[in-house]
Amino acid sequence: MFKKILVANRGEIACRIIKASHELGIPTVAIYSDVESTARHVKMADEAYMIGANPLDTYLNKQLIIDLAKSVGADAIHPGYGFLAENEEFAKMCEDNGITFIGPSSEVIAMMGDKARSKEIMKKFGVPTVPGSDGVLKSVEEAVALAKEIGYPVLLKASAGGGGRGIRICNDEEELKRNYEQAYKEAEKAFGRGDLLLEKYIQNPKHIEFQILGDKYGNVIHLGERDCSIQRRNQKLVEIAPSLVLDEEKRRKYGEICANAAKNIGYYSAGTMEFVSDLEGNIYFIEMNTRIQVEHPVTEMITGIDIVREQIKIAAGEKLSIKQEDVKFNGFAIECRINAEDPKKNYAPSIGTIKRYYAPGGFGVRIESSASVGFEVTPYFDSMIAKLICWGKTFDEAISVTKAALDYFEISGVKTTIPLLKEIMKDPKFKEGMFTTKYLQENPQLLDYKEELSKEDIVSFIAASIAAHYGL
Amino acid sequence: MFKKILVANRGEIACRIIKASHELGIPTVAIYSDVESTARHVKMADEAYMIGANPLDTYLNKQLIIDLAKSVGADAIHPGYGFLAENEEFAKMCEDNGITFIGPSSEVIAMMGDKARSKEIMKKFGVPTVPGSDGVLKSVEEAVALAKEIGYPVLLKASAGGGGRGIRICNDEEELKRNYEQAYKEAEKAFGRGDLLLEKYIQNPKHIEFQILGDKYGNVIHLGERDCSIQRRNQKLVEIAPSLVLDEEKRRKYGEICANAAKNIGYYSAGTMEFVSDLEGNIYFIEMNTRIQVEHPVTEMITGIDIVREQIKIAAGEKLSIKQEDVKFNGFAIECRINAEDPKKNYAPSIGTIKRYYAPGGFGVRIESSASVGFEVTPYFDSMIAKLICWGKTFDEAISVTKAALDYFEISGVKTTIPLLKEIMKDPKFKEGMFTTKYLQENPQLLDYKEELSKEDIVSFIAASIAAHYGL
Repeated sequence: MFKKILVANRGEIACRIIKASHELGIPTVAIYSDVESTARHVKMADEAYMIGANPLDTYLNKQLIIDLAKSVGADAIHPGYGFLAENEEFAKMCEDNGITFIGPSSEVIAMMGDKARSKEIMKKFGVPTVPGSDGVLKSVEEAVALAKEIGYPVLLKASAGGGGRGIRICNDEEELKRNYEQAYKEAEKAFGRGDLLLEKYIQNPKHIEFQILGDKYGNVIHLGERDCSIQRRNQKLVEIAPSLVLDEEKRRKYGEICANAAKNIGYYSAGTMEFVSDLEGNIYFIEMNTRIQVEHPVTEMITGIDIVREQIKIAAGEKLSIKQEDVKFNGFAIECRINAEDPKKNYAPSIGTIKRYYAPGGFGVRIESSASVGFEVTPYFDSMIAKLICWGKTFDEAISVTKAALDYFEISGVKTTIPLLKEIMKDPKFKEGMFTTKYLQENPQLLDYKEELSKEDIVSFIAASIAAHYGL
Repeated sequence: MFKKILVANRGEIACRIIKASHELGIPTVAIYSDVESTARHVKMADEAYMIGANPLDTYLNKQLIIDLAKSVGADAIHPGYGFLAENEEFAKMCEDNGITFIGPSSEVIAMMGDKARSKEIMKKFGVPTVPGSDGVLKSVEEAVALAKEIGYPVLLKASAGGGGRGIRICNDEEELKRNYEQAYKEAEKAFGRGDLLLEKYIQNPKHIEFQILGDKYGNVIHLGERDCSIQRRNQKLVEIAPSLVLDEEKRRKYGEICANAAKNIGYYSAGTMEFVSDLEGNIYFIEMNTRIQVEHPVTEMITGIDIVREQIKIAAGEKLSIKQEDVKFNGFAIECRINAEDPKKNYAPSIGTIKRYYAPGGFGVRIESSASVGFEVTPYFDSMIAKLICWGKTFDEAISVTKAALDYFEISGVKTTIPLLKEIMKDPKFKEGMFTTKYLQENPQLLDYKEELSKEDIVSFIAASIAAHYGL
């Protein structure tokens, strides 16, 4: 096992990794920027080094991090998510310096980092990708035959097009025939070539992703899927596991395909294969994330498997101790991201000092957070300050637990996503589970909540108003 | 379902009950004493009433609580644990006033409240009790034969004795024969009668208890056992589930006996049958607790069943939705009671204001607490301010998780049991699981920990010393 792990990250994920390391009996080293000397991850780690006067560079300074690891005797680095987590150069530097990078090999990171290439590779190994023409269409008849095969609606795209230009949605054969001619002519005119491509149009997709876990000996398993469709500005806000669109049979089938593909590319560590999905649970590969993800706890809640501990054991060369048939899915989990931001103001970051902080607990409630009273929310980093993960035997029960926990959560000093999350938990459309990535966009009424002011907030507000009035 | 539940308790269990009620969609009413207006349970409840100027009487004032329930339209009362939880008179008053008492019937509470009677009844229904003579021994030969049957060591007790007088431990037949004559003579001399009783001597017992759950239609199941042997001053400090002395077969056998006995006495709601046990897992009934227990979360952690939610549903007349065969035991859970007290000073209560409070979270960690920054620990109530419940796939993993969580827990302003709990988690004897109720007594070295002072504590200490020196 490792002698010491350097955690090249901050916030809740740094705390998460430190905890997992300690539980495995491994001492930890934290790094931090000059504005974070009192941060939770600094307190929790066995050693901590201020390595950045510029907060933004602190966690990106590859050479400094490697040098520090060597000088303090850390034989492994966990990159968390973001920052250097999917940086193949950094993974390579670790490898070259005899430090274990807790993640997959730098080759695999590079391979999956090239999105076009990763799609091709995945397709080769049987992972479903968006179906369509294998190149330029030869005739309208070919287009019609293909569309019949893959199902409407389909997209006609100018091969030479880009940025959304030259794209037409066709809902049936008649529309396809009509559009084909027009699109061909338009493309000829616009791009000098009329070549057209056809692919299935996933109208209002869900974001579905499979969690993969593999060791260095070719043993790869999947831990089922998550539905991360509820997003604001292309960033996830609420994630659930399992999804409500995959049945047991599809979960098993797709899960096996994912695990098999990961095995074929020599994947080890935790990884996530991301898909778009229609509401019937047909999924199409988009990309692979070669790191631990923010939303991994929902999978942990329904499987009882500590993914970060597994990552560390795998990196240390241990064989995967869990077999696919041992993975049992139990109940439902929901993760709410509590961000310091104002949803009503287009999710603008909210900066300040946390004055009151109370995180709920109890049956089915898990908190991942680095915040507490006195915590400074700075403009330098991501706005996420806590994750609330709740479990229930049924999806309805998980919602009830989440709802109550959000009601009990207290954060003052900054605006947060809590009031919006409460509205989502009350929404019957959320309960049905058929929400798509357009959910927040299509439901602006969710933002019509009343701001809840605590007594403390009201008193400070009145005091500030009086002071301003009298010019104090 | 109930229209409104009045929670006749305080602290963490009141919060626990309010949460479960909310998750079932039921509004709650809290009561509190004049020193608790800012208490967590008051904040969490939908309504709260100050009903006691004397903190000690607040939660014991039967008539006032009943009157309040009626006036605010609460159709059920949850008594929690302690206070009125096992008060048959209060349960009867609820029944007579058309309010549902969330617990078993007043008759059953009365029946189990009489310890001698409850033992007899349980014995009748096949629950193992401490084996021994069915009355006065007739001869030394009868004593020897009986001892052979129940196994050594045995206790010889003067039938007329009491307070430990006239008791002799016999480890083998020879000792029994020798003691019989001496004890007979001594008893004759001391009590006027030489009559002797014999019973099995459980030398160094474990405290084992079975969790029962039954509905009003005679469906009763068990949720396995807990080991609550680690006690200080006869009060539990650390509880685990399952125990390490019962194997699957014994768990099933005893569990069924318990559930069957509970069914026979017409038990409904949650209840606990308490036993002493030897290290081979032979258990002997002591008493039944007709309420939710402090340590119920360890059972919840390994079964995924919310016992308090079940209590409420059962009280409302719902049929038990869980069948015995659906109860699956998964992993191990450990509960640590974090009390505001000084273990080094014979566990003397520690009074004060909590200045810093940070409760850990993450994989496998559950917190039940009503404390937070600014919380006042008063001398009026029980010293328990938080419960830390941790889960692991194995007992070793559960210990690792507990160990790390205790390290991250921050409470300043009062002394707590945290440093002692850390020592227990490091102790190899705890890890083996063979600890008995004498564990703390027999391991005084666990109290040799160094007091950990936070930076904040040190600064205040120095400031106070300087102030005292200069008479400031």
